Amino acid sequence: MKTQVAIVGAGPSGLLLGQLLSRQGIDNVILERKSGDYVLSRIRAGVLEQGMVDLLREAGVDARMDEEGLPHDGVELAFDNRRVRIDLAGLTDGKTVMVYGQTEVTRDLMEAREAAGGTTIYEADNVQPHDLESEAPYITFEKNGETVRLDCDYVAGCDGFHGISRQSIPKDRIKEFEKVYPFGWLGVLSDTPPVSDELIYARHERGFALCSMRSETRSRYYVQVPLDEKVENWSDERFWEELKRRLPEEVAAQLVTGPSIEKSIAPLRSFVVEPMQYGKLFLVGDAAHIVPPTGAKGLNLAASDVNTLYRLLVKVYQEGRTDLLPRYSVTCLKRIWKAERFSWWMTSLLHKFSEEEGFETRMQQAELDYLTSSEAGLKTIAENYVGLPYEALE
Amino acid sequence: MKTQVAIVGAGPSGLLLGQLLSRQGIDNVILERKSGDYVLSRIRAGVLEQGMVDLLREAGVDARMDEEGLPHDGVELAFDNRRVRIDLAGLTDGKTVMVYGQTEVTRDLMEAREAAGGTTIYEADNVQPHDLESEAPYITFEKNGETVRLDCDYVAGCDGFHGISRQSIPKDRIKEFEKVYPFGWLGVLSDTPPVSDELIYARHERGFALCSMRSETRSRYYVQVPLDEKVENWSDERFWEELKRRLPEEVAAQLVTGPSIEKSIAPLRSFVVEPMQYGKLFLVGDAAHIVPPTGAKGLNLAASDVNTLYRLLVKVYQEGRTDLLPRYSVTCLKRIWKAERFSWWMTSLLHKFSEEEGFETRMQQAELDYLTSSEAGLKTIAENYVGLPYEALE
Repeated sequence: MKTQVAIVGAGPSGLLLGQLLSRQGIDNVILERKSGDYVLSRIRAGVLEQGMVDLLREAGVDARMDEEGLPHDGVELAFDNRRVRIDLAGLTDGKTVMVYGQTEVTRDLMEAREAAGGTTIYEADNVQPHDLESEAPYITFEKNGETVRLDCDYVAGCDGFHGISRQSIPKDRIKEFEKVYPFGWLGVLSDTPPVSDELIYARHERGFALCSMRSETRSRYYVQVPLDEKVENWSDERFWEELKRRLPEEVAAQLVTGPSIEKSIAPLRSFVVEPMQYGKLFLVGDAAHIVPPTGAKGLNLAASDVNTLYRLLVKVYQEGRTDLLPRYSVTCLKRIWKAERFSWWMTSLLHKFSEEEGFETRMQQAELDYLTSSEAGLKTIAENYVGLPYEALE
Repeated sequence: MKTQVAIVGAGPSGLLLGQLLSRQGIDNVILERKSGDYVLSRIRAGVLEQGMVDLLREAGVDARMDEEGLPHDGVELAFDNRRVRIDLAGLTDGKTVMVYGQTEVTRDLMEAREAAGGTTIYEADNVQPHDLESEAPYITFEKNGETVRLDCDYVAGCDGFHGISRQSIPKDRIKEFEKVYPFGWLGVLSDTPPVSDELIYARHERGFALCSMRSETRSRYYVQVPLDEKVENWSDERFWEELKRRLPEEVAAQLVTGPSIEKSIAPLRSFVVEPMQYGKLFLVGDAAHIVPPTGAKGLNLAASDVNTLYRLLVKVYQEGRTDLLPRYSVTCLKRIWKAERFSWWMTSLLHKFSEEEGFETRMQQAELDYLTSSEAGLKTIAENYVGLPYEALE
């Protein structure tokens, strides 16, 4: 087999990149270790920045999003039994975010790819990139017991944190930056109406809580739990009880509970690898960086990587500008580090780090007190939440 | 002896409070453990917020400050061999700071007190407050070998971090919050023209540096050093060499060096006690809270405590409003915690915390990158640096 761009991973990054490239006449093949149904079963993020919404439009997959997605022009911080609204649109000259589940984005992209006749090879085993520093890289994988070779010009590593792409780079050619937080998020998905039209990020002495949603009838809630907590210890009842205790009373009073349709614990991690390219391999999204979910930046950062790689590859294939490719990593990392900072900062601000009420607790309280009483402070939250501008290529 | 307000400590807080009270006809006596010359020999802060400048005017000690003080409408951040100016005035609707040494403020206040015939007892040994929870508190001290008793209505504890005032409060009636930083500041005072008209706060991979000044001919420079560093290890030459390495090249090239007239190492500490009052005792300034010097908030916070206590005591003596006095601590702490946050944050942003370049280093770089490219980010720095508004009494 032969293609121009081999894409490893059929999550939203790989599918979005593939769709964008296909529409520009750039041939690409996606290899995915799992089945399509498995990919769609993963419950993930659901808040899209304006930049990602625009990119999905450019990819031609905006129809259902415009119908079913919920544009949000505000978000709430809750603390000390108070609620403070961050007027996203008002503080950023009209920018908003779109609540539309990652699963839905993935489904839309899969359907668009199928309609356009793009090649996705699911259940591709033992995917292995080769000769990445040469002019003739290729990937081998096994399908139905046979080994297949896919020759290509470039490889896009869209296969997530545990994928083969980053592992294919020699250790001495990259540097990893990491922070692991001493807690996780216990998340519940339920077919209940959201407690509020807008997301509520709550700081409480018992720990962080988040009220989110996927649609007008499907809610997503989280509570901070210790890292060693077991999901088996959390009945639905216990979860709802704990959530209510961490929310302002008037919010808790309006919470509609119901059976969970998914319940799981996710650890929180900050991770970045530098650089994000090695020869003909370009790491995209989670393959190169992880943010804690506070701030809803994970999927959006992947989209901004896709945006950068897509535009660079268009320059390569339409203008012969291979000279710009080496800028991929630097261009991406500038925006990534700012989003990593915002995610780390918002995590630090809202979570409980210690049983004792000490200096750090007072710093959280003072920061919330200051930021929510300052127009400039509110603006710094809003402009990061809706997403900082994409970096220019040149 | 008898007075209305007994003030412990003849530093700038005690003197300013005394001067303000005297001008309102409220009798006060200041007790100071050291001599007046000793008090004047202490080299301290030199950047006054607008609020403190206004308060000094209200106290009638603005003449020499207006003549010799240097109004600053900007301050610089230096990092990555770059300089970014924070346009304080432009970002805060015209607010500025005044560079005028704490020693000069103290001298002006001493002279004003002497001219007004106020009582200051220097070299008062074994100062000890008594019966602070009663209606008849008093202070005993020794002067020239004799024990003297000073009866009063209220006691203002302006005697600094190590003073007797806070130590007079039973341990179970207060809570202490503290953070000690793993480094100190090595400071040099020299009769050389400042390298720049404005202060320069520099983040460098070798550590933090600060270019400050006391006048157009007297400079004050600092470099971050390990906590166990000895000042004897630092010749003037070594100091200037190290300072230059941490500054942007164009700044280093313009640095005028000369013999140090003072050289010392100060540790960095964040400290707050809650509450700041106990019966008839009110803690003021360093007696209740310490900030690391990054951000120049120490003296200014003391002034805002003085402002609050002064206005409350005027209400007591002119309107009989003793009911407001219990609000002293809450009113002060609201502003103090915000300034503690700013000082801790600015310290965290600009200092070197680890030999290794890791995630935290990248967070510092990303935060500087973000803040200096965002109008809102610059505003948050500016509005904190010039000083947040004084809290209302009611």
